[in-house]
Amino acid sequence: MSILVVGSVFFDSLQTPHGTVERTLGGAATYFSVAASFFAPVRMVATVGEDFPQEEIDFLTERKVDLSGLEIRPGRTGSWKGRYHDDMNQRDTLDLDLGVFSDFKPQLGDDHKKAQYVFLANIDPRLQESVLDQLAAPGIIGCDTMNHWIAEARPELERLLGRVGLLVINDEEARQLSGETNIVRAARRLLKLGPKRILIKRGEYGVIQFSADSVFAVPAFPLEVVFDPTGAGDTFAGGLMGEIARSGALTEATLRRAIVYGSVMASFVVEDFGLGRLRTLTKEDIQKRFRQFVSLTDINPA
Amino acid sequence: MSILVVGSVFFDSLQTPHGTVERTLGGAATYFSVAASFFAPVRMVATVGEDFPQEEIDFLTERKVDLSGLEIRPGRTGSWKGRYHDDMNQRDTLDLDLGVFSDFKPQLGDDHKKAQYVFLANIDPRLQESVLDQLAAPGIIGCDTMNHWIAEARPELERLLGRVGLLVINDEEARQLSGETNIVRAARRLLKLGPKRILIKRGEYGVIQFSADSVFAVPAFPLEVVFDPTGAGDTFAGGLMGEIARSGALTEATLRRAIVYGSVMASFVVEDFGLGRLRTLTKEDIQKRFRQFVSLTDINPA
Repeated sequence: MSILVVGSVFFDSLQTPHGTVERTLGGAATYFSVAASFFAPVRMVATVGEDFPQEEIDFLTERKVDLSGLEIRPGRTGSWKGRYHDDMNQRDTLDLDLGVFSDFKPQLGDDHKKAQYVFLANIDPRLQESVLDQLAAPGIIGCDTMNHWIAEARPELERLLGRVGLLVINDEEARQLSGETNIVRAARRLLKLGPKRILIKRGEYGVIQFSADSVFAVPAFPLEVVFDPTGAGDTFAGGLMGEIARSGALTEATLRRAIVYGSVMASFVVEDFGLGRLRTLTKEDIQKRFRQFVSLTDINPA
Repeated sequence: MSILVVGSVFFDSLQTPHGTVERTLGGAATYFSVAASFFAPVRMVATVGEDFPQEEIDFLTERKVDLSGLEIRPGRTGSWKGRYHDDMNQRDTLDLDLGVFSDFKPQLGDDHKKAQYVFLANIDPRLQESVLDQLAAPGIIGCDTMNHWIAEARPELERLLGRVGLLVINDEEARQLSGETNIVRAARRLLKLGPKRILIKRGEYGVIQFSADSVFAVPAFPLEVVFDPTGAGDTFAGGLMGEIARSGALTEATLRRAIVYGSVMASFVVEDFGLGRLRTLTKEDIQKRFRQFVSLTDINPA
């Protein structure tokens, strides 16, 4: 089953303690699509400017990402420039140019409207809801958001959350949205807003998932070098939704496996600048690291 | 097999967002002993003043903690007063009176010297090493330390680490001692100092263990209320060493199970002030929470 993702495609210029890179392909929809494409076909709905290079179109097409929903408009592709602090846990925005993304109004084609697996990457919750309004018979809907929308569009965000099944959010955002410091109480409050499952990303500490009747926690893969954390959360979501769509059902077992695959994909993407590591990644690499996750977390090893 | 622990017995006065308590029984050796006593017999070597109440002697004796190494000296039992910040991750020392602990010189009796399972709780590394010098044929030695000794007695601490098998340390201390920000590189450096296994406590994020050929990570148990985090690390070490001594061997499987039991014990102790929760805890409570840890971390649930 294919996945529909709606979100941003950007160029990122990054400064990390390990070096700098100029205008590398980024954006939530991009990271998500490339990660998910290892598991299931992906249809991307996004907008870029006329400056968007053919070679990146070719790269995404080779990864079997359907770009019929990628609108190319007069103007510039959005771009972001950021600098990470030494501990990689904080970053500053040095420059932001939304370009054509500032007028993004997601329009679904007829094929998109039939999507059963949908991920609403971090954009204005009003746009996220407009996507849901266009779907014929929505199935499994995941969404992300960010501190800006929690502060500036809370009513719209809460209305959206009443219509999604999985909320993928980081721990600071979970605290901000719920008003609870304790992460368990935060998750319980967020469940009341609608989503059946709350997936809280905790950076180097991994992911913890809450539903009404289960809790599942998985550590992040311990890496000696985190080269560039950009896109790790969107890559996690791509692996997650990819494995759910591949499985075709959302059981507890599928969800847990999908969270681990999401963590596997995130552990790869941070090993190089931007999408670099995902460009050379193989399914064998993914399976090997999945087995390493099993070993990392196995309470009763053979 | 019994466990020998050497460390502090204190009275703690605590202020947390959930309330305050005056002069409750605390100290690393106390938390360790009570936790370990659920798994194996414990012999405690420590010192208290003449003000130490008979009812606490009775409590520890009922828990089958051998107090033949508890020296009662003229003067006051050490006491500490601390206040936790709202997020419970930081605390300030308001008052510290070492009392008779300031002259603590651990002296092992003949039975103590034969110990095969030994835990050196956080005290001056010179005193920790003096305990090792008194052992007849040391078996499995664990130790803890703190930022003060890393800064003030690094050569002595490094010499000690060449003689211990398990280092139990928190993440900040691991970074300080290794000079590495990344926790994987920090652990690799600490392994070079001597210990076969480095166990890094990460507070609400659980524990990660490194050896030359394995990595194991377990989350902390997600609790809606952390009432009082005092002693959580020592309680973890007690459950850990207790299960290792109960098993009688240090295989990878034993170590992982022991880390989970340590995490189980720590998850209980923070549910009440001081040792409160451990005073009423049962083996059934422990087994039930162990099963909850299995469920919490199981990548392939049935």
